[in-house]
Amino acid sequence: MPRQVDVAIIGAGTAGLTAIKEIKNLTKNYLLIDRGPLGTTCSRVGCMPSKVLLQVAHDLSRVKVLKALNIYQGDGTIDLSEGMRHVRKLRDYFVNFAVEEIKEMGDHFIQAEASFLSPGRLKLDNGEEVEAKAIIIATGSSPVIPKEWDEFKDRIVTTDSLFELQTLDKSWAVIGMGPLGLEMGQAMALLGCEVHGFDKNPMLGGLKDEIVHSEALKSLQKSFPIHLKADVKLSRIGSKIRVSWGDQHRDVDRILAAVGRKANVGSLNLKAARCPLDEKSLPVFDPETMKVKDAAIFLAGDMDGQKMVLHEAADDGRIAGFNALQEHPIRFKRKVKIGITFSSPNLCTVGQSLKDIKEPVVIGEVSFTKQGRSVIMDENEGMLRVYAEKTTGLILGAELAAPSGEHLAHLLAHAIGQKQKVQELLRFPFYHPTVEEGLRTALRTAKKQLDCKVDPGPDLDRCEA
Amino acid sequence: MPRQVDVAIIGAGTAGLTAIKEIKNLTKNYLLIDRGPLGTTCSRVGCMPSKVLLQVAHDLSRVKVLKALNIYQGDGTIDLSEGMRHVRKLRDYFVNFAVEEIKEMGDHFIQAEASFLSPGRLKLDNGEEVEAKAIIIATGSSPVIPKEWDEFKDRIVTTDSLFELQTLDKSWAVIGMGPLGLEMGQAMALLGCEVHGFDKNPMLGGLKDEIVHSEALKSLQKSFPIHLKADVKLSRIGSKIRVSWGDQHRDVDRILAAVGRKANVGSLNLKAARCPLDEKSLPVFDPETMKVKDAAIFLAGDMDGQKMVLHEAADDGRIAGFNALQEHPIRFKRKVKIGITFSSPNLCTVGQSLKDIKEPVVIGEVSFTKQGRSVIMDENEGMLRVYAEKTTGLILGAELAAPSGEHLAHLLAHAIGQKQKVQELLRFPFYHPTVEEGLRTALRTAKKQLDCKVDPGPDLDRCEA
Repeated sequence: MPRQVDVAIIGAGTAGLTAIKEIKNLTKNYLLIDRGPLGTTCSRVGCMPSKVLLQVAHDLSRVKVLKALNIYQGDGTIDLSEGMRHVRKLRDYFVNFAVEEIKEMGDHFIQAEASFLSPGRLKLDNGEEVEAKAIIIATGSSPVIPKEWDEFKDRIVTTDSLFELQTLDKSWAVIGMGPLGLEMGQAMALLGCEVHGFDKNPMLGGLKDEIVHSEALKSLQKSFPIHLKADVKLSRIGSKIRVSWGDQHRDVDRILAAVGRKANVGSLNLKAARCPLDEKSLPVFDPETMKVKDAAIFLAGDMDGQKMVLHEAADDGRIAGFNALQEHPIRFKRKVKIGITFSSPNLCTVGQSLKDIKEPVVIGEVSFTKQGRSVIMDENEGMLRVYAEKTTGLILGAELAAPSGEHLAHLLAHAIGQKQKVQELLRFPFYHPTVEEGLRTALRTAKKQLDCKVDPGPDLDRCEA
Repeated sequence: MPRQVDVAIIGAGTAGLTAIKEIKNLTKNYLLIDRGPLGTTCSRVGCMPSKVLLQVAHDLSRVKVLKALNIYQGDGTIDLSEGMRHVRKLRDYFVNFAVEEIKEMGDHFIQAEASFLSPGRLKLDNGEEVEAKAIIIATGSSPVIPKEWDEFKDRIVTTDSLFELQTLDKSWAVIGMGPLGLEMGQAMALLGCEVHGFDKNPMLGGLKDEIVHSEALKSLQKSFPIHLKADVKLSRIGSKIRVSWGDQHRDVDRILAAVGRKANVGSLNLKAARCPLDEKSLPVFDPETMKVKDAAIFLAGDMDGQKMVLHEAADDGRIAGFNALQEHPIRFKRKVKIGITFSSPNLCTVGQSLKDIKEPVVIGEVSFTKQGRSVIMDENEGMLRVYAEKTTGLILGAELAAPSGEHLAHLLAHAIGQKQKVQELLRFPFYHPTVEEGLRTALRTAKKQLDCKVDPGPDLDRCEA
């Protein structure tokens, strides 16, 4: 006799745990299933340990600034193994929050691997069976290592294994200059490793604006050499791995493969769910309801193949959980798009990219080279470009490589979501001295190019007559 | 024969220089008068040098973090004179922007001290006379040293003299725990000085929310002892200054007096302008037009006795410049109120204070003690409280002591200015892991207390049916 539940959630990561927050409002009869190890991707092997390593690296770069100014004098050494120990200590701290949350669920949780027997029925690898009115698949994703690199696996780490290293090898090739590859490449370089970064694509960090990208690349190259449009081949030279691209090569101790992630669906036996699958063998679903076509199945989180960022995974979970037992699933609008690479400078994309915009557009621009606060921080590098509709001033999108860019990106996402115009955003306070003033400069250059009437005089609302 | 101009601007600081940006659109016949030294208060003795010193101090605190974690090992010394040299070097860099701007004005600028001869007529101390259709007074402010401290002046610095010190004395009393006193007190403490902070008021940094203040004080006290409600008396003990309060005392090398600023109007001979003066002997004016009552005189910047922050001074200048030659001056709404103390944690006030709010209110709250990114930064201290109208969710104000609080304050000012509700602001992206997620937590606690209908389910807009 299978266990009968209203909702079964496969995967106790961010998406699954968030789904439960909504499901709890609908039923007490739900079951969370996870094969382990427990802890979200974010806390175990993603956002959190990577940000800890970046923070250490960033702090060390401040030591260098003080030394260059002769303000801090003396010799010091970096203990990488203490650095890695610190990363794992904080990682464990964050993992524990998720583990505690799961433990508190008691009987609502089973640690097991689930696979479909039939559309509403799951088999667990502990022998149990579960029948559910709705099933949420939130099994996450895992880093990919290309098949042709199999023979070098002893020298390749992904984020799944990077943070387990007791110390960091001396020389690295980081393959894949997306957000994570960039962050870890720069972190290791600042920590004293010899790092080369590679990507087969012409642009890094998810940027699409060529001018912002060019400034970003210039700045990042000061930390470590980055080779774009580089199709790398690996071979073994003694104890080293030779990375070859074009007519160049470099021999390194270790490879960080950051070339993408794939959905964890291998063990689910999706065929038995009898739902339509797409060309990647993933269920066809509606991102506004998270519901799989013609099935009482919902997707949530990284496994859906959409943008793999935590707040989107959490929204997936919220939507899937909310809709799981609805007769007519509610369609939700997704949030303003925002992407952040936490390198120095931060690389951010917000709203529409320049290439996606159809309307005639003006581009407001600021370089951070002379931006006051950025100069004070000795982080005066990068550029911000904001795109606005020429005939109205409506802010449509922005890309930036900027100090404290993560915060500017939030402000811009907020303005875009509010359908604000350049000339309206200028009426809000920009405190001195902040990097936000850099954004204001960009907005002012955009305002001057607008093809619509704007009030002359101060960027302030006028009192009613 | 006096020089005839349309507009005379007295004071080449931020307010005066900004006024000219508007005046240029109206007339080419304007004259800027400044007695020197050239350079804005902000760049010479205010925001900029203080932020440079804070940045150095903050960077040194990162060294301490790395050492405590054993990641950075070795002995080092702090060279305070190199620190002060760096402060002056960057200060000169910033001052130079203003000086260059003034130089480019050519004949539009005279370096001289101006005083009124009659309502539209000025006398300069180089013997010239100027007759103007409108006069903008933008003479700024200067730090006050109470009269009873006159005999200790050799041991007292203000921000006018602090950054001229070749090095920093060992022991300090910082009197006045407003934004500047706090910033400099904490900076000097982090730089290794023995600092005690004093204020006769019960709350510091412009905060009015007692709970936020209590968290702020707890955190700041880790850098240096702060004595509030302390009415200090000074006396001389050998080469030291004895600071006495209540039944306690402390002997220090140097005093930083940060007890307030007064308008620079002493040499203006305002009587001759024949405009109405208030109890502080300052012209009575309308802050929405910046026009002095019954006179073709406008005020701008610190000298108007309003909140002394740069963006407000610049707005003053914009309004005064725009209105200087208008037959009917335009009334402008001032920006959402925002105040930032750049200490660690940042202390910020946005919009209305809790005490000013008349409506029934809910308070959203977050402690940064366990906030993810703040933990990673090892700056997990402080608290944010956001005030919203109970019956609607309308965000009215916020106070915070928070890591990266300056950025949260901008986002909150933006939301308040847009008349956003708690439940609406929650629909914008909060990227992971950022301190902005702390704000989201506070918004969620506010949302739960609202006395109005909010959509159940995900914090997302619903698609049209």
